[in-house]
Amino acid sequence: MPLHTRLTELFGIEHPIISAPMGFVAGGKLAAAVSNAGGLGLIGGGYGDAEWLQQQFIAAGNAKVGCGFITWSLANKPELLDPVLERHPVAVMLSFGRPAPFAAKIKDSGAKLICQVQSLANAREAIDAGADVIVAQGGEAGGHGGSRATFTLVPDVADLISQTNSSAVLVAAGGVADGRALAAALMLGAEGVLLGSRFVMSAEAATPDGFRFAVIVADGDATVKTSAFDVVRKYDWPEKHQARGLKNRFTTRWHGHETALQEAGTIATENERYWNAFHAGDAENAGVLIGENAGLIRDVSPARTIVERIVEEAQTTMEQRRALLR
Amino acid sequence: MPLHTRLTELFGIEHPIISAPMGFVAGGKLAAAVSNAGGLGLIGGGYGDAEWLQQQFIAAGNAKVGCGFITWSLANKPELLDPVLERHPVAVMLSFGRPAPFAAKIKDSGAKLICQVQSLANAREAIDAGADVIVAQGGEAGGHGGSRATFTLVPDVADLISQTNSSAVLVAAGGVADGRALAAALMLGAEGVLLGSRFVMSAEAATPDGFRFAVIVADGDATVKTSAFDVVRKYDWPEKHQARGLKNRFTTRWHGHETALQEAGTIATENERYWNAFHAGDAENAGVLIGENAGLIRDVSPARTIVERIVEEAQTTMEQRRALLR
Repeated sequence: MPLHTRLTELFGIEHPIISAPMGFVAGGKLAAAVSNAGGLGLIGGGYGDAEWLQQQFIAAGNAKVGCGFITWSLANKPELLDPVLERHPVAVMLSFGRPAPFAAKIKDSGAKLICQVQSLANAREAIDAGADVIVAQGGEAGGHGGSRATFTLVPDVADLISQTNSSAVLVAAGGVADGRALAAALMLGAEGVLLGSRFVMSAEAATPDGFRFAVIVADGDATVKTSAFDVVRKYDWPEKHQARGLKNRFTTRWHGHETALQEAGTIATENERYWNAFHAGDAENAGVLIGENAGLIRDVSPARTIVERIVEEAQTTMEQRRALLR
Repeated sequence: MPLHTRLTELFGIEHPIISAPMGFVAGGKLAAAVSNAGGLGLIGGGYGDAEWLQQQFIAAGNAKVGCGFITWSLANKPELLDPVLERHPVAVMLSFGRPAPFAAKIKDSGAKLICQVQSLANAREAIDAGADVIVAQGGEAGGHGGSRATFTLVPDVADLISQTNSSAVLVAAGGVADGRALAAALMLGAEGVLLGSRFVMSAEAATPDGFRFAVIVADGDATVKTSAFDVVRKYDWPEKHQARGLKNRFTTRWHGHETALQEAGTIATENERYWNAFHAGDAENAGVLIGENAGLIRDVSPARTIVERIVEEAQTTMEQRRALLR
């Protein structure tokens, strides 16, 4: 029994599920696997490595995938956009910054414009920019996010879309890991979901094994939102967008002590140490960016299994809970 | 068409809706109105004024209501419990502290034990204490809360209940204002919802008109979570439980500057100024404790209207969204 929504209609896909364009993790292999499973896979533009991006489109082969950018980072390297648009992505997603400067070019290329928003204020900008899809992302998400929560942001944005007569299709993100969350998102007014953390734990993601084991044993209380991951990596994120990851030796040492971390005598050593740990898959001394749904993620599975399981569970949940009406 | 769940069964009530026992705001009048509308109304034990509590039970008349306490505050004044139990409340709710010291006495009195939790760790304590109902409260809630979000905490606690073979009935709180949220909560595994902010905006709540107007014009981006409300009131809340309220002149001045607020030369003046503003219904200079769902609350209505509207909207939502399965 398919789950047919305005999102599946817009992209001509089978399932209302999008994989987040996560930097480092969401390459062409993952994006293609999600699209081939009937969802929509997005390649993670990250902090802008043009060559890596081209390799990922090649890795995606003939699968219909899209690409996502960190908007403020793209604004620093706007030359990254053209080569991506030449690859004819199904969609381009912008998050964390003003979409207006890029909107027309993206839409003119034939790609759909997806704007991820963390507040009502962001959602207004997305509507003004002519977003085809608005992803309302709650702060329970893994990696970067805002302070609003999925449970209230989604209906807020649904009402805004309706009040402004926008034709944007609403998608929920932040804390989505299973079919219960997809069913709940549909009740709150979304037409589908975007998942990051769940796909970090897919077979096709470029996730070190050490990180995978750490997420499997973590529960939902085990994450923290902090600026420390960005400070140590020397990434210039706006202060309002901190990143959520597992509490570990690194966050215990540096969360709340970001000023000390930035000191000249410290940052060089810590930056090197961080990246060494990251590349070694050392889950205690690098950032394991994952959402509050860490406790709901208990395995590593192929993207296709993840997509199909979520849709099936959503359907069962909706049928079973409907039986409460009597 | 009634919405019949394990929560309605447990209390023999018509609708799976509980009103939060909010200090100052949730008196006997509101609790009785919610219970008389087919839900379960809880009187707010607040910081422990024995005489006020007795007046509220008298105001509730013959309605079957319960009562809620701030657990750490009750631990400082344990003598408040007996006179409440003598009133034969349907339920006693404990939140923000260890329930174990009070659990047996409450259950022995014939009242159901409701434990509100803000994390999985809290939920484990609630199960160990023999809670009949566990309210999983997300940090998007108005007033005091934790850092976990409703969207992930509810399924986390649902899984914990199931894994431990607990018979506790799960209720969702934090960000619930309408029928979409009730429907979503049911999908996430809850058997009902507990609402605070929505009932702050009921006709029966003891809410100053100035606060009501401020909430009506506020949107969902308009709240902040802060310790400043507690510091100025000299309430000794654990640091992890900050309170959410409208951003206003008071929070602009003092949020993030709590240390300065506590200084001897300042706190006496500011405490007096705060309470004067509070009693005058001055929404700029006192704490208007309300959740991220502020934008979804657009009127002041009788509690009965609120209850019936939510249930009806939940039913419609579940029916309409089920039509997506095809």
